[in-house]
Amino acid sequence: MNYPGGIKKQNESSVTAKNVSYKNRGMTLEAELNTSNEYYRGIDKAYIYKKPTPIKITKVDYPSRDKAVIKEAFFTIPSTTDYNGLYKGKYIDFEAKETKSKTSFSLENIHEHQIKHLENIDKHGGIAFVIVRFTTLNETYLLMTKDLLEFLQTSNRKSIPIDFFREKAYQIKDGYNPRLDYLKIIDQVIGGI
Amino acid sequence: MNYPGGIKKQNESSVTAKNVSYKNRGMTLEAELNTSNEYYRGIDKAYIYKKPTPIKITKVDYPSRDKAVIKEAFFTIPSTTDYNGLYKGKYIDFEAKETKSKTSFSLENIHEHQIKHLENIDKHGGIAFVIVRFTTLNETYLLMTKDLLEFLQTSNRKSIPIDFFREKAYQIKDGYNPRLDYLKIIDQVIGGI
Repeated sequence: MNYPGGIKKQNESSVTAKNVSYKNRGMTLEAELNTSNEYYRGIDKAYIYKKPTPIKITKVDYPSRDKAVIKEAFFTIPSTTDYNGLYKGKYIDFEAKETKSKTSFSLENIHEHQIKHLENIDKHGGIAFVIVRFTTLNETYLLMTKDLLEFLQTSNRKSIPIDFFREKAYQIKDGYNPRLDYLKIIDQVIGGI
Repeated sequence: MNYPGGIKKQNESSVTAKNVSYKNRGMTLEAELNTSNEYYRGIDKAYIYKKPTPIKITKVDYPSRDKAVIKEAFFTIPSTTDYNGLYKGKYIDFEAKETKSKTSFSLENIHEHQIKHLENIDKHGGIAFVIVRFTTLNETYLLMTKDLLEFLQTSNRKSIPIDFFREKAYQIKDGYNPRLDYLKIIDQVIGGI
């Protein structure tokens, strides 16, 4: 879907700092998705959560009977994507990533087994996608798995150029509540299936 | 509190313990569900995962550029259930618990917000349930959310008697591969919807 990339609201205070949007200042994509998901739950629209960060715990102390303190643990590679849940009876599954690049999204940001996971979900009737934010440009895109796979099958590049997103992905505009109304896009996608 | 990878090995001396089934020896319900889910993924049947244990990280060390070691963290209350995923285009969501009691399952084992979560999932078209194992009896049940809610609405008891499970829930028999074929029951349930 083509969203004419132009018209971005500039905020008065951001007029001098050309690349920084006032709206997003201080909020990561993750934080915005979390508040959006909270909003969706609050209005009983969708039940989508970020999964906890996977870690391997190697040492635990029990200073008292009911309390456990983890004293040593390591971050581990996630086996799936970061977000999943339920919307209108559909299984939703996605990964969200930010990049500072103005020109492309490096595929190193997504593990191969995560792409395989998205492919499996897509094949089994789930709604699977990635959300990519180009922070410097303040452009956020939702790319459906089928389009991601199409890119991977037809290109040897190790990064997806921004033009591919502008052409094939759906741009998610900043909003107030929810901050990132990505389910509006899913409505279009479900409608179009 | 469940610990990741917390497969508690039973030692040889337990062979004499009459109530321990040979089949389940050394495998917790969690471990059996994990191997079953792995099996389902391996045969491309379903994509259901245990979510990582939620923790709050308070201290992280970076001994080298690429390595992070968590030096202090605490277990936090999960906001949802432990397992979710996709099967036959349906969103699957459940909590799994063991009890040593021979007579009833204490509702203290499930947080109120987890029950609310299961209710929301059920209402929005997901397949939501609990799996409860009476370890001493070696009986494992799958109880659909609607039946759990029925119990909660019609009883003031703080625990669900085993007879309620025997009457309303589906017993999951031990198998070889998958160890716990709970999707066989879900097939019946989906078929009956």
